[in-house]
Amino acid sequence: MADAVDEGALVAEAQRLVRIPSWDGQETPAQEAMAGLMAENGLEVDRWDIDLAALAGHSHYAAEIDRTEAVGVVGTLPGRRGGRSLILNGHVDVVPPGEEGAWRHPPFDAVLESGRLYGRGSLDMKGALVAGLHALAAVRAAGVRLAGDVHLMSVIGEEDGGTGTLASVLRGYRADGAVVMEPTDLAVAPAQAGVLNFRIRVPGLAAHGAVREEGVSALDKLFPVHAALRGLEEERNRRLGGDPLFAAYRLPFPICVGTVRGGDWASSVPDHVTVEGRMGLAPGELLEDARRQMGEAITNTADGDPWLRDHPPLLSWWGGRFLAARTPPDHPLVGAVRSAAATVTGREPPLQGMTYGADMGLLAEVGGTPAVLFGPGDIRRAHRPDEWVAVADLVATARTLAVAAVRFCG
Amino acid sequence: MADAVDEGALVAEAQRLVRIPSWDGQETPAQEAMAGLMAENGLEVDRWDIDLAALAGHSHYAAEIDRTEAVGVVGTLPGRRGGRSLILNGHVDVVPPGEEGAWRHPPFDAVLESGRLYGRGSLDMKGALVAGLHALAAVRAAGVRLAGDVHLMSVIGEEDGGTGTLASVLRGYRADGAVVMEPTDLAVAPAQAGVLNFRIRVPGLAAHGAVREEGVSALDKLFPVHAALRGLEEERNRRLGGDPLFAAYRLPFPICVGTVRGGDWASSVPDHVTVEGRMGLAPGELLEDARRQMGEAITNTADGDPWLRDHPPLLSWWGGRFLAARTPPDHPLVGAVRSAAATVTGREPPLQGMTYGADMGLLAEVGGTPAVLFGPGDIRRAHRPDEWVAVADLVATARTLAVAAVRFCG
Repeated sequence: MADAVDEGALVAEAQRLVRIPSWDGQETPAQEAMAGLMAENGLEVDRWDIDLAALAGHSHYAAEIDRTEAVGVVGTLPGRRGGRSLILNGHVDVVPPGEEGAWRHPPFDAVLESGRLYGRGSLDMKGALVAGLHALAAVRAAGVRLAGDVHLMSVIGEEDGGTGTLASVLRGYRADGAVVMEPTDLAVAPAQAGVLNFRIRVPGLAAHGAVREEGVSALDKLFPVHAALRGLEEERNRRLGGDPLFAAYRLPFPICVGTVRGGDWASSVPDHVTVEGRMGLAPGELLEDARRQMGEAITNTADGDPWLRDHPPLLSWWGGRFLAARTPPDHPLVGAVRSAAATVTGREPPLQGMTYGADMGLLAEVGGTPAVLFGPGDIRRAHRPDEWVAVADLVATARTLAVAAVRFCG
Repeated sequence: MADAVDEGALVAEAQRLVRIPSWDGQETPAQEAMAGLMAENGLEVDRWDIDLAALAGHSHYAAEIDRTEAVGVVGTLPGRRGGRSLILNGHVDVVPPGEEGAWRHPPFDAVLESGRLYGRGSLDMKGALVAGLHALAAVRAAGVRLAGDVHLMSVIGEEDGGTGTLASVLRGYRADGAVVMEPTDLAVAPAQAGVLNFRIRVPGLAAHGAVREEGVSALDKLFPVHAALRGLEEERNRRLGGDPLFAAYRLPFPICVGTVRGGDWASSVPDHVTVEGRMGLAPGELLEDARRQMGEAITNTADGDPWLRDHPPLLSWWGGRFLAARTPPDHPLVGAVRSAAATVTGREPPLQGMTYGADMGLLAEVGGTPAVLFGPGDIRRAHRPDEWVAVADLVATARTLAVAAVRFCG
């Protein structure tokens, strides 16, 4: 079965897909290409126009950008009936390449060099998506007819909060298990942290820099607010970090401030500073609870400051969010993927949760489909110049998923 | 003499000038208008194209913007000879109006309401410049022939580091005394702080927010650097703040951080944060000494931090700078302006230094001309929406300067 994976076709098709730029909102050409590749590889293709207006009303819709069009694509390898069904999920959307000058290989050239496929999306996660396709192609090529259906779900908008996965789940694609083929470096991850994006605007009072004491610097007032976030992070990780799947991380659920912007003039006291960041959530935690905790931490700090008490920082929640998810490590899906990976790679794969957000939460929470993350390469190389994935890892992923499909679906 | 000030003409001409937008780099129409007003009011007009290429090589040239043209205008009321010469200095450049929606009266409509002239530049400082013109018109109208020459220096680029005053001084306009007609609220200010603009870039190490402990937040590292600036400010003001002319201020020479920008993505650890601000300088202080002190304060802090020791913050000095200046309070110029103000307003004017930068330093340091700041209105209303100046203060300024010119120039 594993030997039936066609490495040459896998790499060539991954290159074809990487060469189609597909950042969020511009994913249609990549989706059409995936529909074509699925058909070429013998899957039954369901391609539809997502009704964005209808989707926008859903409580789990969380896109940051306004799309004018969105396409759903699911390819199915139909089973004989009677077995467990499986979803393989991967996204075609990529983050923008940033400054192209920072890339050694142009981001959309899909250069192969020393066993690595370079390019935006090679790792995150077009390579894995095509690996999933070739897992199913290998099952077919081996003449195996599975008992359960397998659906290859090619989605848009993962980087943008999960629009494509939500639409696919709502179209009816649910199963007995799902593998989200995000980069786990071939670890099996039955848990995924959630993520909420936050924004905090700290007010000050403008004054000319020559008489700065007549103003209140919003930057001065950011410091205690930032310290409050650190205190909250420490407390939350102490309280929530006991899950053995996250034992490898000192801070599995970090609160990270990523941007800071404040003031308009070098010689004025800044009357506003805004920070934006992301808050990690533990599986099982309610979004409202996490939001409330941050609100309380900021309010408590403001209460201790004469200026902030009367001019409270403004906390808001914006943009994409990711639901946390957790599948019990003794679930048959976890066992099937672990044992398949051990068979293919010759070593027991690590079992641990991932601290980044992905589409696993939507599959589990909205679709009722237990899921794991499993895929090639190190997430740290994603969202960077010269993103790459090892061809050997793509092949190992395809082989593992082919074997896992047989073991899980029967 | 004071009665000879023509209030109606003063106000009408100030309105004409405010109605000509003239932010830095676009001052020529306002300068041409001033040349016309000077001629209408009987002054001998020297109007010349400033040789920007030649000026740029001067050690005190400090413009932030690249100009393609710049015009100098000086109007002279010639004396009989034998008396002290006097310069009245005012700038036509204004800071941009910002969001026009924040203005109750449009910034370039020069609306008169309840004895106030509204508009960008009304206070800072076209109103005062026209008041200076009408001081000289009043001297002429009264039939007085002064012993010394009086030069009305209409300059560009004050907000931008003093290009116009530098050019006028280098053209030969030096005198026994100068009044820079900046808003002092009719106080006599024989001292002015200097200003240096600084920029500090604090480095961090990027990492995905999901594993923030693998990075180093530049925002975290800004906090000790900011604390070092506060420590330096306290130490400097303790050491330099003994001048009785600055006794009214707890912090006469503040170090103010005005802007902060850092990070590119909400869910990444920020690998850079940059702050920009202004550092106040005491009269008599060398620019190099102040720069060195800030460099040392930052280096000392960096030495105590393992990350910053190896990745030191980058300090740079940019944009406009203003030299500090101080004229002894017993100088005849100070006495002449004070006594004239007392005569005109019926009360002794306050005597204190100003903490903001202006062109006084260039007149004194480069031109060897002792100077004071004296003008209408509160500097706190400058650089704001709905900037205004009281017509009564414009008239008081014109009358005071007319009387002062007679007393100083003979």
